[in-house]
Amino acid sequence: MVGMRGAYGYNGSGNESGGEVAVTEIAAMAVQHKVSPPPAQSTASKMKARVKETFFPDDPFRGFKGQPLRVKWLMAVQYLFPILDWVPSYSFSLFKSDLVAGLTIASLAIPQGISYAKLASLPPIIGLYSSFVPPMVYAVLGSSRDLAVGPVSIASLVMGSMLRQAVSPDQEPILYLQLAFTSTFFAGLVQASLGILRLGFIIDFLSKATLVGFMAGAAIIVSLQQLKALLGIVHFTTEMGLVPVMASVIHHTKEWSWQTILMAVCFLVLLLTARHVSMKWPKLFWVSACAPLACVIISTLLVFLFKAQKHGISIIGQLKCGLNRPSWDKLLFDPAYLGLTVKTGLVTGIISLTEGVAVGRTFASLKDYQVDGNKEMMAIGLMNIVGSCTSCYVTTGAFSRSAVNHNAGCKTAMSNVIMALTVMVTLLFLMPLFVYTPNVVLGAIIIAAVIGLIDLPAVYHIWKMDKMDFLVCVCAFAGVIFISVQEGLAIAVGISIFRVLLQITRPKMMIQGNIKGTDIYRNIHQYKDAQRVPGFLILTVEAPINFANTNYLNERMKRWIEEESSAGNKQTDLHFVVLDLSAVPAIDTSGISFLIDLKKSTEKRGLELILVNPTGEVMEKIQRVNDAHGHFKSDSLYLTTGEAVASLSAYSKMTTP
Amino acid sequence: MVGMRGAYGYNGSGNESGGEVAVTEIAAMAVQHKVSPPPAQSTASKMKARVKETFFPDDPFRGFKGQPLRVKWLMAVQYLFPILDWVPSYSFSLFKSDLVAGLTIASLAIPQGISYAKLASLPPIIGLYSSFVPPMVYAVLGSSRDLAVGPVSIASLVMGSMLRQAVSPDQEPILYLQLAFTSTFFAGLVQASLGILRLGFIIDFLSKATLVGFMAGAAIIVSLQQLKALLGIVHFTTEMGLVPVMASVIHHTKEWSWQTILMAVCFLVLLLTARHVSMKWPKLFWVSACAPLACVIISTLLVFLFKAQKHGISIIGQLKCGLNRPSWDKLLFDPAYLGLTVKTGLVTGIISLTEGVAVGRTFASLKDYQVDGNKEMMAIGLMNIVGSCTSCYVTTGAFSRSAVNHNAGCKTAMSNVIMALTVMVTLLFLMPLFVYTPNVVLGAIIIAAVIGLIDLPAVYHIWKMDKMDFLVCVCAFAGVIFISVQEGLAIAVGISIFRVLLQITRPKMMIQGNIKGTDIYRNIHQYKDAQRVPGFLILTVEAPINFANTNYLNERMKRWIEEESSAGNKQTDLHFVVLDLSAVPAIDTSGISFLIDLKKSTEKRGLELILVNPTGEVMEKIQRVNDAHGHFKSDSLYLTTGEAVASLSAYSKMTTP
Repeated sequence: MVGMRGAYGYNGSGNESGGEVAVTEIAAMAVQHKVSPPPAQSTASKMKARVKETFFPDDPFRGFKGQPLRVKWLMAVQYLFPILDWVPSYSFSLFKSDLVAGLTIASLAIPQGISYAKLASLPPIIGLYSSFVPPMVYAVLGSSRDLAVGPVSIASLVMGSMLRQAVSPDQEPILYLQLAFTSTFFAGLVQASLGILRLGFIIDFLSKATLVGFMAGAAIIVSLQQLKALLGIVHFTTEMGLVPVMASVIHHTKEWSWQTILMAVCFLVLLLTARHVSMKWPKLFWVSACAPLACVIISTLLVFLFKAQKHGISIIGQLKCGLNRPSWDKLLFDPAYLGLTVKTGLVTGIISLTEGVAVGRTFASLKDYQVDGNKEMMAIGLMNIVGSCTSCYVTTGAFSRSAVNHNAGCKTAMSNVIMALTVMVTLLFLMPLFVYTPNVVLGAIIIAAVIGLIDLPAVYHIWKMDKMDFLVCVCAFAGVIFISVQEGLAIAVGISIFRVLLQITRPKMMIQGNIKGTDIYRNIHQYKDAQRVPGFLILTVEAPINFANTNYLNERMKRWIEEESSAGNKQTDLHFVVLDLSAVPAIDTSGISFLIDLKKSTEKRGLELILVNPTGEVMEKIQRVNDAHGHFKSDSLYLTTGEAVASLSAYSKMTTP
Repeated sequence: MVGMRGAYGYNGSGNESGGEVAVTEIAAMAVQHKVSPPPAQSTASKMKARVKETFFPDDPFRGFKGQPLRVKWLMAVQYLFPILDWVPSYSFSLFKSDLVAGLTIASLAIPQGISYAKLASLPPIIGLYSSFVPPMVYAVLGSSRDLAVGPVSIASLVMGSMLRQAVSPDQEPILYLQLAFTSTFFAGLVQASLGILRLGFIIDFLSKATLVGFMAGAAIIVSLQQLKALLGIVHFTTEMGLVPVMASVIHHTKEWSWQTILMAVCFLVLLLTARHVSMKWPKLFWVSACAPLACVIISTLLVFLFKAQKHGISIIGQLKCGLNRPSWDKLLFDPAYLGLTVKTGLVTGIISLTEGVAVGRTFASLKDYQVDGNKEMMAIGLMNIVGSCTSCYVTTGAFSRSAVNHNAGCKTAMSNVIMALTVMVTLLFLMPLFVYTPNVVLGAIIIAAVIGLIDLPAVYHIWKMDKMDFLVCVCAFAGVIFISVQEGLAIAVGISIFRVLLQITRPKMMIQGNIKGTDIYRNIHQYKDAQRVPGFLILTVEAPINFANTNYLNERMKRWIEEESSAGNKQTDLHFVVLDLSAVPAIDTSGISFLIDLKKSTEKRGLELILVNPTGEVMEKIQRVNDAHGHFKSDSLYLTTGEAVASLSAYSKMTTP
């Protein structure tokens, strides 16, 4: 008798003649619509569509279609070298803007380059080398107009901390340098591969909450490392954690040098004040941009005039003039160190890529142009591969310098070229001037730079919005501070992924009720005026139904049905279990087994299972099950809950005596 | 002017007076309903609800509520010892059924016990010990009525292969035995902990596709191992992979013994025929159930009569009479082997737990009673802990024996007790009879048992239903056969999880159209009669919006909007972007940032972003954003797409000149 309810076939080609006579009355009461499967497609074309959506969601070649071959070639060259987009129309007025911006970021890049190299336990000159070649490469290949390229604090910190575990930079400086270049090479390789293989979404797994916590932790670790320079301690721990560093600081109070501390306090106050001024009045961005260089000049002069290096203030010392030397002969693929360099390359590569791409996207959306993530990865990756062959270590787009670049009014990647040329002049002629630069001022510059990474408003926002995200953030922070930089990051990523899996494992299921006077059905806990329909149990599932949650759904559902049918009140004289599948994007074989099992167990209890609005893929599989076993006939499929309830209650009124 | 459209406040307490005068006409055209947030809850109570849903989805203590203290205690004892459920009402007629079933499974358990112990490279007697104590423990603690407990092939295989990597069972038999007991102890500990900590969902990550592939691969590996016994090879490889085993078989053709091979072929044919008979006529289940014991008896007699052990047929040899000896003094917590035993315990524990729980659930749903997964885990775990102290190795509910138990008409766990007592009698008095049992018949018994693990119809079903699941299945199979049992499993689990993550990373987004003459909106690719509404871009997202997919959603969405607004045809004069959030169960801070960003970028293009039907948690967060920044005012929130389109098109007709 079930078939008499009307054949609301899921078969697109309409075969409704089945029960037409019997349903005329019902049809007058409620119009019904068929659930139709998506248009038939071969497995190969479905696979192709899925691969395309996974790896080419941005459809980078859509402009190529229908163009003649010559134009296609031209477009391909333009795609690979974004510089060709802007060079032909480059004008003098654009150049003026870029010149100002380029000089401004150069004044920031020189002291930061030296400082960050020391953070990675590398010779200071490597920091300057890294501010010369990579920006030139990026100007040719990069598609962001605002990114200021160079060494950054966190990648330097991570590289230093990972390499120092195996090799001491003091005892084996040459080997250490080789490992740094090799790691840089692998970092570039990883970055370029992610771009070419279009696996850019890997960096999406570093969520904002993870990054906020990680950055804040790293900033504190970096600042703690500067205590060596700021206090003038000679015998400092080589560990990075909060506890060993503080222990080392306290145990070496005898080494504290008051001259150094005085200088540190003065320059820190100066730098932080400049930072504060620029934040309060964004037009005065140049104050904080020029402050580091000013500090370097003043402190160098002070040391030179007072011969302070003889009063316990340590200085950088002699630096060789000259441009980057080739370093491809220094790349070391010795199996003994291959694991270390690959791992270091992977971690620093992904961290610096995350920073670079995020910075590029931020400024692109401010100026309303597009940055292609995968293309950026290739650009950053190639830049690091070239860098590793020209005595540079890991570089990327730095947030602070890019902000200055943006504020200074840069128009194109030419500002990077100007910066690189300024660094080149420094490398060629001005290196002797840095002999007397005290290390303490470099420490102060680093602290002033990384303090901006501690983003308390973001932490507060995360706390307000989402407590689980806050937990992720705190774990990343605590992990970095108390365990290690890499492990803190790994823990936070692990928790983020576990949370996503948990959402799948325990999907939201809700009982829906009818909003009075409409055919709208909504969650009865959210909508007070949504009321249960007597005789119906209307449920929604909001997740793909798959192996990870079928057991849960099964138990949860059976319990609900049990509670409903055993409830004392006669009002809920349950006849129909309606499962709204609108929010189920996908289903796997375990999910299909779950549906079949549910169908059977409801039948045993004398109930009928109704499925509402299965979407494309789900509908396709339900149809396949039906073809094979005959579960889920067309009369148990409805397009909307409203139609299902209207039709079924009319039908049950007709059939019950 | 936007505020004039009428304040369809998300504030439950209704404040609609805002634009009442202006919207009277519209109100007549379309009735609208408010989007309301879920009732306010404190963070603590939300956390409590989530923890409850995650760890206690079955609400095991719901029966306890409102009962007097004495009843509560009684119920707690009953909860811990399910034997108390059925013992008080146990009757002689139940006992008769259990007796038959118990004797039947005992006839299967004795030869299988001996064989599986050899599979794990343990002395045969350990297999019998393991069929004595654990079933008794399970009868007290377990809640399944059909589970037949004892050693199983896959856990034996895995334990053997993992322990043999470190210790040779031939050269250091005592140490090997100690490691086996210790691993069993850890397996029990892992199982019981998963149950007590209510982390049972961990085993859900072994999807059906994974298990089908893994089981088939393991069955082949197990069968290959039997070639040693079946061909009579003496110098056999200790490796497990397909390639080394086949190489070893071919290299030792000289050791092949024709007497052994003849015997192997005869008994294999006998056993497989018996299996086939029982599968074809389920009433003849006892044919395959008794066949192994019959083979053992016949072969032993043959060897004894013909003195076949002198003609190249290897025999089990002397076995000591007597029951299990205590083995808690053999548990070895030496740091040198701790890593190995913990790892072995973890892997074998989870694998055997998966089998036991799945078997229990399967038969429970056939007989329509409930098995509590977490309680089963505690029972199986305790059973293994007790087992490890009484000379037993890892045991669980075996699929083949449970099926025989079920077919033989068992009623309660008493059948396990009968089986255990039969094994006890064997251990005490019948051991000398096994002296002449040839190893070849044990090999044949194992092959006949594991052949059932290769489930080709299931593979075909998976292939038909889901190509990605099929890939997972094939990877598990190939991994087990060509790499190793554990790594094959790890690869398959990895792919399963990666697939789930990929679904989150690339969520389904669809353009919806209106089904003519209704206010239903559906995917235009699935429904041919769904038509685009001019001026509207109606999109749905079917996944939680979180860090893993915001970048993708952002790019995808912007491209759609771009294509729409730059399309040549005047027909799509885009005004409104409608985002249906019905299928978005959750949103995190990155997701909220994405919504705000989308709002801003649509505004820049002169479009308006409308959100439809945000569910509980999402609505709550949207409200919080609104309180803080004023995005997403009440006039950009609608309960259904139909209402949004009706109201907005009426409004834009009114305002456009």
